[in-house]
Amino acid sequence: MFILLSIFMTLPVLLLASSEAPNAMAFAESSAICLGVGVIGVLLTRRHAQELKPRFMFVLTVSSWFILALLSCLPFYLSDLDVTLADAVFESTSGITTTGATVLSGLDEMDRDLLLWRSILQWIGGIGIIGMFVAVLPFLRVGGMRLFATESSEWTDKALPRMKTLSRGLLIVYLAFSIIAVTVYWLSGMSLFDAFNHGLTSIATGGFSTSDLSMGKFDSNLILLEATAFMMIGSLPFFLFVREMYGQHGVLFRDQQVRLFFTILLVVPALLTAYRWTISGGDLDLIDGYVATLFNVTSIVTTTGYASDDYSAWGPLAFVVFFFLMFVGGCSGSTAGGMKIFRFQLSLLVLREQLMRLLHPRAVLTRNYNGRAVSDEIIASMIAYTFIFLLCLLVITTALAAMQLDFITSLSSALTVLTNVGPGLGAIVGPAGNFGPLPEAAKWILSVGMLMGRLEILSVVIVLSPAFWRG
Amino acid sequence: MFILLSIFMTLPVLLLASSEAPNAMAFAESSAICLGVGVIGVLLTRRHAQELKPRFMFVLTVSSWFILALLSCLPFYLSDLDVTLADAVFESTSGITTTGATVLSGLDEMDRDLLLWRSILQWIGGIGIIGMFVAVLPFLRVGGMRLFATESSEWTDKALPRMKTLSRGLLIVYLAFSIIAVTVYWLSGMSLFDAFNHGLTSIATGGFSTSDLSMGKFDSNLILLEATAFMMIGSLPFFLFVREMYGQHGVLFRDQQVRLFFTILLVVPALLTAYRWTISGGDLDLIDGYVATLFNVTSIVTTTGYASDDYSAWGPLAFVVFFFLMFVGGCSGSTAGGMKIFRFQLSLLVLREQLMRLLHPRAVLTRNYNGRAVSDEIIASMIAYTFIFLLCLLVITTALAAMQLDFITSLSSALTVLTNVGPGLGAIVGPAGNFGPLPEAAKWILSVGMLMGRLEILSVVIVLSPAFWRG
Ligand SMILES: [K+]
Ligand SMILES: [K+]
Repeated sequence: MFILLSIFMTLPVLLLASSEAPNAMAFAESSAICLGVGVIGVLLTRRHAQELKPRFMFVLTVSSWFILALLSCLPFYLSDLDVTLADAVFESTSGITTTGATVLSGLDEMDRDLLLWRSILQWIGGIGIIGMFVAVLPFLRVGGMRLFATESSEWTDKALPRMKTLSRGLLIVYLAFSIIAVTVYWLSGMSLFDAFNHGLTSIATGGFSTSDLSMGKFDSNLILLEATAFMMIGSLPFFLFVREMYGQHGVLFRDQQVRLFFTILLVVPALLTAYRWTISGGDLDLIDGYVATLFNVTSIVTTTGYASDDYSAWGPLAFVVFFFLMFVGGCSGSTAGGMKIFRFQLSLLVLREQLMRLLHPRAVLTRNYNGRAVSDEIIASMIAYTFIFLLCLLVITTALAAMQLDFITSLSSALTVLTNVGPGLGAIVGPAGNFGPLPEAAKWILSVGMLMGRLEILSVVIVLSPAFWRG
Repeated sequence: MFILLSIFMTLPVLLLASSEAPNAMAFAESSAICLGVGVIGVLLTRRHAQELKPRFMFVLTVSSWFILALLSCLPFYLSDLDVTLADAVFESTSGITTTGATVLSGLDEMDRDLLLWRSILQWIGGIGIIGMFVAVLPFLRVGGMRLFATESSEWTDKALPRMKTLSRGLLIVYLAFSIIAVTVYWLSGMSLFDAFNHGLTSIATGGFSTSDLSMGKFDSNLILLEATAFMMIGSLPFFLFVREMYGQHGVLFRDQQVRLFFTILLVVPALLTAYRWTISGGDLDLIDGYVATLFNVTSIVTTTGYASDDYSAWGPLAFVVFFFLMFVGGCSGSTAGGMKIFRFQLSLLVLREQLMRLLHPRAVLTRNYNGRAVSDEIIASMIAYTFIFLLCLLVITTALAAMQLDFITSLSSALTVLTNVGPGLGAIVGPAGNFGPLPEAAKWILSVGMLMGRLEILSVVIVLSPAFWRG
């Protein structure tokens, strides 16, 4: 894996003309270091390769992501950017976890090799999380993910080597959508460089941009709508795309998670546009207003984090709606973060069941999701996730507030890293600001928060728990 | 019940010299109206008295509280106070639900009969909720309350009529603590009138005061510490007091809920004092600072809502801590509101169980709380409560924001009514402000929110659900 990273690190230099890659030396050094770590890693883990106990898989998964985040900071740290180690780690973690929060400003004038590296990191992170969802999480039974264990792997003909078919399918779909995104952006008037960067970070729901204005740079409703579409694609369950590809037509839109996802994106932007129109006294251009609202809402729900405007200044209702939307997240099995739509649906199932039970104490009830029974174990696993998510939100918010950051900055920063959205709310970390002004310690904490969010939190907590290392 | 209310309504006039009760006429009229409603109610429900199906009990419980809230607004509305109907209903609902949020200012110069009525309302609300917890909620299986069904009623000798013994015991304990509180306050320098009012609203964890400065009026560390003690008593499980009274010594402090409650109140004020001392540059008087911190933290955790100071100006960390503490709430079976400590403990149990299961997938695990097994049904019931609580928080916050109230005002108002704490956070509804400036519509919504919070939300939601009225 680290060897792969080392190869990816040469890309920013290879893809650009030498005049555009002033940090070639930094990338070469970084790549060499990764290669070294990779070789050592292979030597160390080779003898354990057979041991696929949960304990070992947890350590392997969690440590891989942490080490990846650390190694991929090297190009930033060794470049001629004037950044501290905390800054460099924050930026690379934000990349690999597809969070997209940034400590850097002046993106429009930044060295192109560094911009490209940020986008490539998010693209790697995107396929990484899709792969992890299919290959690792369901078997580790983390946070209700078992719900998808059968769904994502037990569908092909039994004679086929399922996992391999699925992996290849996922890679093809991911690559295809990325290429389409880059091409469409390019044809719509972006420069090839901008199209390439935004194409990668749209499908990865990453949200890094090549401009401080984010997607506002292009000032084009067409591009906003295209980006909306690509962000949506990035936060749909990729294994359903593969099933569609293998001839199971209609599975995507029959999926309950996908249906609620599109319902949210149909209802919320429409209502919010109406609200903006009302408080503007009828002054808002309805088409521009709707496109901007749709784009920014989609950006938050898909946990991409692009902005076309400072939506935190759209009035109190918009502020509150964006705050709550940050929790939602996309569908499981996608590149999106957040608490994931299926968890809300499971909670709703339990709620409905309880209301029925209150009325008819002796009734026999069954829970079904996407046509499958939902076991008590999956529900318990979902509660555990939700509880630890809220606990982490509390701890990180408190830690930031202890550094004298205000309530909204603390709370929204903690939330935005745990859900891998990217921008927070308020004057400092909102869509019009960035994370540069925060204290060093806050950046370290937030970097860990991004990794925890990406790893469904429980995986990290379990590796840190004393019981894990006992016996 | 409404006949009882009608009798209580005569109290403010009877207890005060006639010169101090300028609104005697208003009280007399209100009392007469209540009596009328009460008689009609008795006539209507007499024939259903045997029908104790869940459906009927839900309607009876929920409608009683709503009607009580409406009737008890009459003295405010008919008095010479210049209040709208929304104001009057907000104030009486805030009283009967022991929330303690107020739309009134100028309390120090207010007619004494009205002040007394506010305190009596909270005192009635306090014993009302204790009674409901023991008599109604466990059998309705609301929000995990079944956990306490056996605990609170199956402990006495089987030969005794349990429910009656328990009810009498609860009433005696409640009355005794109220008398003690009034006496102690009086001996510590409050006027008899102030002592009486604050005594009632301390034990009821209500939080209404006779001054805009709340407990800050008395400027006495002794009184703050006494109030701290009485608020703690008010938010302990009252049925455990009864068991202690009947000779089961030690049950109170062996209770897991009680232990965590005191742990929180030991740890948080100490840390917060240290923080305040640090950011003051060592300038904070440690004794005054600790007492004030302890008092205000206890006031929030017990959901009383007294203030001795504008704690929202104690720095960002204090702000965040008070925000999170507003969720906690006291122990079940007390007069306190909030999400209740046992729900956090149950979540923690599930989390721990899940972590063990992730490591040892085949292990057989049992959940125990206070020495009893916790069934999956209770867990599901708790999730349903938590989910609907957060959903209501979202809906109310969004509704307030749609009226152009800012994020902190909207969110903290919604939270403070659902948890029956009282004051919110921020400049408008914080401890230094009041709910008077909010729009009329917001006051109606918040009044409903207080009642929902008091009735464990689910009871209200179920009565409003279409399925309830079907079949
Ligand atoms: K993102
Ligand atoms: K209260």
